[in-house]
Amino acid sequence: MKLAMIGLGRMGANMVRRLAGDGHEVIAFDVDTENSKALASELDSVTAVTSLEELITSLAPPRAIWLMVPHQFVDQSIDSLLNAGMTEGDCLIDGGNSNFNLSKQRAEKLQASGIHFVDSGTSGGVWGLENGYSIMAGGSDEAIAMIRPALESLAPAKDKGWGHVGPAGAGHYVKMVHNGIEYGMMQAFAEGFEMLEAKKEMNLDCQQISEIWQHGSVVRSWLLDLIADAFADDKSLSSLSDYVDDSGEGRWTVQDSIDLAVPTPVLTLALQMRFRSRQDASFAGKVLNAMRAGFGGHSIRPVKQG
Amino acid sequence: MKLAMIGLGRMGANMVRRLAGDGHEVIAFDVDTENSKALASELDSVTAVTSLEELITSLAPPRAIWLMVPHQFVDQSIDSLLNAGMTEGDCLIDGGNSNFNLSKQRAEKLQASGIHFVDSGTSGGVWGLENGYSIMAGGSDEAIAMIRPALESLAPAKDKGWGHVGPAGAGHYVKMVHNGIEYGMMQAFAEGFEMLEAKKEMNLDCQQISEIWQHGSVVRSWLLDLIADAFADDKSLSSLSDYVDDSGEGRWTVQDSIDLAVPTPVLTLALQMRFRSRQDASFAGKVLNAMRAGFGGHSIRPVKQG
Repeated sequence: MKLAMIGLGRMGANMVRRLAGDGHEVIAFDVDTENSKALASELDSVTAVTSLEELITSLAPPRAIWLMVPHQFVDQSIDSLLNAGMTEGDCLIDGGNSNFNLSKQRAEKLQASGIHFVDSGTSGGVWGLENGYSIMAGGSDEAIAMIRPALESLAPAKDKGWGHVGPAGAGHYVKMVHNGIEYGMMQAFAEGFEMLEAKKEMNLDCQQISEIWQHGSVVRSWLLDLIADAFADDKSLSSLSDYVDDSGEGRWTVQDSIDLAVPTPVLTLALQMRFRSRQDASFAGKVLNAMRAGFGGHSIRPVKQG
Repeated sequence: MKLAMIGLGRMGANMVRRLAGDGHEVIAFDVDTENSKALASELDSVTAVTSLEELITSLAPPRAIWLMVPHQFVDQSIDSLLNAGMTEGDCLIDGGNSNFNLSKQRAEKLQASGIHFVDSGTSGGVWGLENGYSIMAGGSDEAIAMIRPALESLAPAKDKGWGHVGPAGAGHYVKMVHNGIEYGMMQAFAEGFEMLEAKKEMNLDCQQISEIWQHGSVVRSWLLDLIADAFADDKSLSSLSDYVDDSGEGRWTVQDSIDLAVPTPVLTLALQMRFRSRQDASFAGKVLNAMRAGFGGHSIRPVKQG
């Protein structure tokens, strides 16, 4: 099929490569025109455009327009596309990590203009180009049917690793929960390896252990493969800080678990531990020490003098 | 090599099958003699014995004797083997899930009699027969060298999925942490699927989603494969209760994290949630309601009248 891709960061560009590799024609746009030009010169079936107006006129209606932009730019991109001529019958796909509540709202807003909306949660990171992406799509049957050839090409196989999981919003919801689970799994591995590292008397080798576990163990997983690769590159992870960022999906997972009143202690704590990782000096720790000092008789570590 | 296996439950019997399939001769003993007889009639290279004395005389010294018994029977088995004639130069392997502190003590006790001890943490469950077992072995170089042919056969490949991770105790320590991580990963998946199930407005299909995630997603893992299989068998898991047992390794992980003063909030909470799953009526909940009743003005649910 012929479709447009907006946003040619690492995810977007690799998705264009996978689509082009499977015979699709892609109209490519990025705010940095160098990105679209580079991709067009790399791939015969990719055409670079320098404006959204040009993007709209390059596709015959009904158009399929795929957004792969950071979630804070989705509304702005939709407004620009409407101004540029996106119209009734077209289908807009948000393939990024948007909040599912916003996706539901965007679907309703676009539906009022007769424009289809698909929220397509996409997992796989930079490995997706080779392995295919795991795709969780939300939207109407009609919208999914319109873009099915692209979904089948992006997924690991035509009938594997992607699915129409529910109405608009459901794709990003399922992707959000996927990322929430990912936070919990990552924290579980992180805590386990911290224990192995801390058990000095046994002089354990985290790299060796991660490689043993890759074969036949209950914890074998793609995340463990990444850990083993990291230890192989840098046995003590000396080049990495322990400041751990987040990009939103973990927070939304915890927020929705609160709205649903569903207990998610592990997912919640995995997120909280990321927050804790970013504190050089926690005020809570100072408050605890203030109380311990008040009790008297406890050892309190004063602030180190620089 | 020729070795003895004591304990022919599901794990032990399958390990004998894998050893026999790779050309080893196995002297097999189980407290239930039917188990050893059945295995001997199934496999030419397996000989059933009906006493530990017969087991000892069936092997030429130095003997390799593998225990696959529940951890509460390990000391008793060792004493019986010593009485039956296990002697200097022999090697005793504890392949079960013993506490690493006990394994260190057992190694010291046996070392005083010149008997080698290997603690071999074994992961893989009933799938190990086909896939091979992930094995984390602790002990001296000499002891590991003695039993290396058996380790290479039990593992997924000669040089994959097993390793000599440290001194006696280290094998069970690494296996313990492996299981601690497993608790955390399992709880993360469990909470995520609970959210998907609870999001009624989207009518999500947990089976479909688990199958999508098996291909290309960040959470793909052997545990997810088990989940997908379970949903394929019984879409609503209607045949299962939510009472979740534990077999000790998770507790030991949390206990040792306390001894090390290493923070393991997610591993700890995963264990605590198993405890909570076993409470029909939590006393803590009653205490909370007593306070809410005391505040006044809050809705308190009384005990249902049977």
